Amino acid sequence: MKVLPPGVKPADFEAALGEFRAAIGADWVFSADEDVELYRDQFSPSWGEEDERRASAAVAPASVEEVQAIVRIANRHRIPLFPISTGRNFGYGGPAPNLSGTVVIDLKRMNRVIEVDDKRHFCIVEPGVSYLDLYRHIQERGLKVWIDCPDPGWGSPVGNALDHGVGYTPGIHRDHFGAHCGMEVVLANGEVMRTGMGAMPGSKTWGEYRYGYGPYVDGLFAQGNFGIVTKMGFWLMPEPEAYLTSTVTVPRHDDLHALIEEMNYLEHVGVCGDPSYASPMGRYQRDPELVAMWKKPGRASAQELDAFAASKGLPSWSARLQFYGSAAGIAADFDYAKARLRARIPAAQFTPAETIRFPASDAEKDRFDRKVAIGVPSLEVFTGMALADAAGHVYFTSVIPKSAEAVFEAQRVYSDVYDEAGVQFSGLAGVGPYSLPATWAYHTFIFRMPLPTFHDDVAANRKVRGIIHKLVEVAAAHGWGEYRTPAMFQDAVAKAYSFNNNALLHFCEQIKDAVDPNGILAPGRGGVWPKRFRKERK
Amino acid sequence: MKVLPPGVKPADFEAALGEFRAAIGADWVFSADEDVELYRDQFSPSWGEEDERRASAAVAPASVEEVQAIVRIANRHRIPLFPISTGRNFGYGGPAPNLSGTVVIDLKRMNRVIEVDDKRHFCIVEPGVSYLDLYRHIQERGLKVWIDCPDPGWGSPVGNALDHGVGYTPGIHRDHFGAHCGMEVVLANGEVMRTGMGAMPGSKTWGEYRYGYGPYVDGLFAQGNFGIVTKMGFWLMPEPEAYLTSTVTVPRHDDLHALIEEMNYLEHVGVCGDPSYASPMGRYQRDPELVAMWKKPGRASAQELDAFAASKGLPSWSARLQFYGSAAGIAADFDYAKARLRARIPAAQFTPAETIRFPASDAEKDRFDRKVAIGVPSLEVFTGMALADAAGHVYFTSVIPKSAEAVFEAQRVYSDVYDEAGVQFSGLAGVGPYSLPATWAYHTFIFRMPLPTFHDDVAANRKVRGIIHKLVEVAAAHGWGEYRTPAMFQDAVAKAYSFNNNALLHFCEQIKDAVDPNGILAPGRGGVWPKRFRKERK
Repeated sequence: MKVLPPGVKPADFEAALGEFRAAIGADWVFSADEDVELYRDQFSPSWGEEDERRASAAVAPASVEEVQAIVRIANRHRIPLFPISTGRNFGYGGPAPNLSGTVVIDLKRMNRVIEVDDKRHFCIVEPGVSYLDLYRHIQERGLKVWIDCPDPGWGSPVGNALDHGVGYTPGIHRDHFGAHCGMEVVLANGEVMRTGMGAMPGSKTWGEYRYGYGPYVDGLFAQGNFGIVTKMGFWLMPEPEAYLTSTVTVPRHDDLHALIEEMNYLEHVGVCGDPSYASPMGRYQRDPELVAMWKKPGRASAQELDAFAASKGLPSWSARLQFYGSAAGIAADFDYAKARLRARIPAAQFTPAETIRFPASDAEKDRFDRKVAIGVPSLEVFTGMALADAAGHVYFTSVIPKSAEAVFEAQRVYSDVYDEAGVQFSGLAGVGPYSLPATWAYHTFIFRMPLPTFHDDVAANRKVRGIIHKLVEVAAAHGWGEYRTPAMFQDAVAKAYSFNNNALLHFCEQIKDAVDPNGILAPGRGGVWPKRFRKERK
Repeated sequence: MKVLPPGVKPADFEAALGEFRAAIGADWVFSADEDVELYRDQFSPSWGEEDERRASAAVAPASVEEVQAIVRIANRHRIPLFPISTGRNFGYGGPAPNLSGTVVIDLKRMNRVIEVDDKRHFCIVEPGVSYLDLYRHIQERGLKVWIDCPDPGWGSPVGNALDHGVGYTPGIHRDHFGAHCGMEVVLANGEVMRTGMGAMPGSKTWGEYRYGYGPYVDGLFAQGNFGIVTKMGFWLMPEPEAYLTSTVTVPRHDDLHALIEEMNYLEHVGVCGDPSYASPMGRYQRDPELVAMWKKPGRASAQELDAFAASKGLPSWSARLQFYGSAAGIAADFDYAKARLRARIPAAQFTPAETIRFPASDAEKDRFDRKVAIGVPSLEVFTGMALADAAGHVYFTSVIPKSAEAVFEAQRVYSDVYDEAGVQFSGLAGVGPYSLPATWAYHTFIFRMPLPTFHDDVAANRKVRGIIHKLVEVAAAHGWGEYRTPAMFQDAVAKAYSFNNNALLHFCEQIKDAVDPNGILAPGRGGVWPKRFRKERK
């Protein structure tokens, strides 16, 4: 059953579809149920319920001119539009819009790699280009630049950057929005705007200098709804001579303090890449003895956890030492990192260094279990992934400080939420004394927890939604906010950024009403609702 | 003679001053001519002419609440305000506003260092804090973090970042806006807004994660006029174990191609810092023989320039190899850089490495001629600086690609403009075959040329203004834009970013009218004029 956008009459909707067909060809306007079904969020935590956010139709333009035509038609008929790049934002909403009835603009056909420069190290791409496409383009031409990619390579550099997505190579390259440089955007009025140096006709430095002149507006288009991004530049890292990796393990619970301080130092001074913390004890997070210890009042002490780890003969924590640069330089830096870590944590152990020199063959790259660390996209993350009875998952992703204190506090605080909810999840874990934050962001930790979603269990989905809302609330009480979230939680997350009565959100909504008076672009995205739909805020 | 803002009646202006005095104390409201004189741009290229941009008064609030009170009063009386941090933006407009009659808000009294963290490597500061203040704060506490500073240390990290200012340490730290993280802003309606993680009350990661949730608005406040920034976070680099520097020289004119390609590689792969190109031949830029060769039709060929350089026994170009990190790692990287450069340019010569280990005494740091490269602010850049008969200078700063082709083209194109103007400048040079771009920006070159300004020569100032306008126009025709410019050229520069009839500027003005309907905040800054004053655009 098709849901139309609130306040849009069926006749206006049909008229708009007709004009879309005339503008871009009937083959690229999808309104049959079986086609529109493909734009559902398969991981939706409200699958099949009234609250599931569902598109009414989809259009797939092939050019910026077609995007402009669609926006102008939508404006005339006041039809909301939701742009997606490759639509792979799984765990964060997939291809589905914030507001049911919205028409998805699927940009997959705009898949040109406009430029890759391996002397000045940048690229310019369209939204439909995937990490796999861009990597292939570079390899086929033998260009000496890397890309930075997230785990599944089927996503879009543009789409991922616009949701503040992240990857695994060094420093700022992991922050895909932070590494972007210049945009082309179709505004709500149908005009095309270019930002940064792109705003200069015939610009020679679109992909190199990001600010151009005057106010720097690019940030408005990430997690925002002020325009449809149709091209984007990115800085690229040149291929290093070599990569070296080793895993350091430290035995005791409280060694995490020194480990994180040292890894912060090594990373921020430019010696190491992403530290990727883990715990060899992680496999015991569901062990009954550990669960009992962790569930008792006051939870497990460092001493108890050390005794438990000793009983298993395993160290408490590990970090990944990753070095990129000259073969001799990174070998020396590995010795330096070992010396620093041993000085702070004498019991630290290091696995033998694994090294790869570039250019490398595919076979050589295949030796590495984490190819994303050397800029190689794949779909390997899905290999052997078991969702048990779940249909998918949604992520709760809170930003916490880069310290062991913050990690230990988050473990306890979030465990309280899970305990109170009284759920044992199958397939996807909750949180425990060996849960660790993600290290994608260059200067912060992201304490992320997946929660399962179902196609056949409304009660379980409801419970998951309740837990996420509680997590958002508890996190905010601790000064931790989320960096990214599926559509259905975006209002709650945006609201938690509540300094001075949500002054930031109100500022964004003032801008929204000025630049998109009919509220047609992605109403609700990032928590920003246009005046026309503001009552839809949850 | 006091100039009031256009359309503001003397009685309203006096009423506003009276309310300012009541709000922040009469001692901090400056309206006497001799006080307001201090807010003139001493380097103005229209000194004493009608077109010189002059404040009508200045106010110096001590707190964000006082800033709010001033903004509310200004809104009631429709008095435009122009915020400055330390007012040291010399060469780019100093402390003077875009629109004559504007009241300067001087934030120098808001000079608190809120936080410096040397485990997680960030700081939060107010606008009145100078680089010298912040450095002193860090040294006094023995904190193991560096700052990145421009040549004169008396400027403000906040103010410099908000004009997209730059420095000298590695990578993104040189881009002061790029290294910022979170803001507090007083909006045109007098409300306080915090951005990024700062928007979460009690936030734990203000200085660590920049985007927070939803649209990222910070860029609007740099080279913009959408709010008054009252606090700002910055990422800091931890103190490295060692710094190593050597200068590489290459003999031939066309060696610059390979030199720049290799330095681009070494810098972007994370091996080297700022390459700081120079030419040992630069001292001959005014040599009659060279000038004659350069002025002839077609200008000097590479062969002619090589012969000339050989006649002087000097190499054509140099670059600075700068390494930061572990002592052993950077020694190995120096060897790697030498090997790479020699493979491309066999005649490359290297000066012996100079090394410093940290922590270092002031005496050890003093050995280095360029202390900004090791994060030490000073006023040494002024030592021995001779302005000849000039009162100051203005900068023309164009963004060009990071390639020798672009450098050689810029030398020729800009020389044409100077030749056509027929001026020989005293004290400050024009452009010649050994002029090189600045390397502050991480992924681009900035081809900067200072032009002298005078307090006693209206005709010379007019000529300078004419040349700058011509340079802006010629640069735009080549796809090069300026990244920063004094108030009087901001309209021309913004206009040159003219893609789709200045769509970017119109977008900014739509926002301006929405968030500052009375047009009271820095009208004209960054080329953005509020509706009320739009006819003031030049």
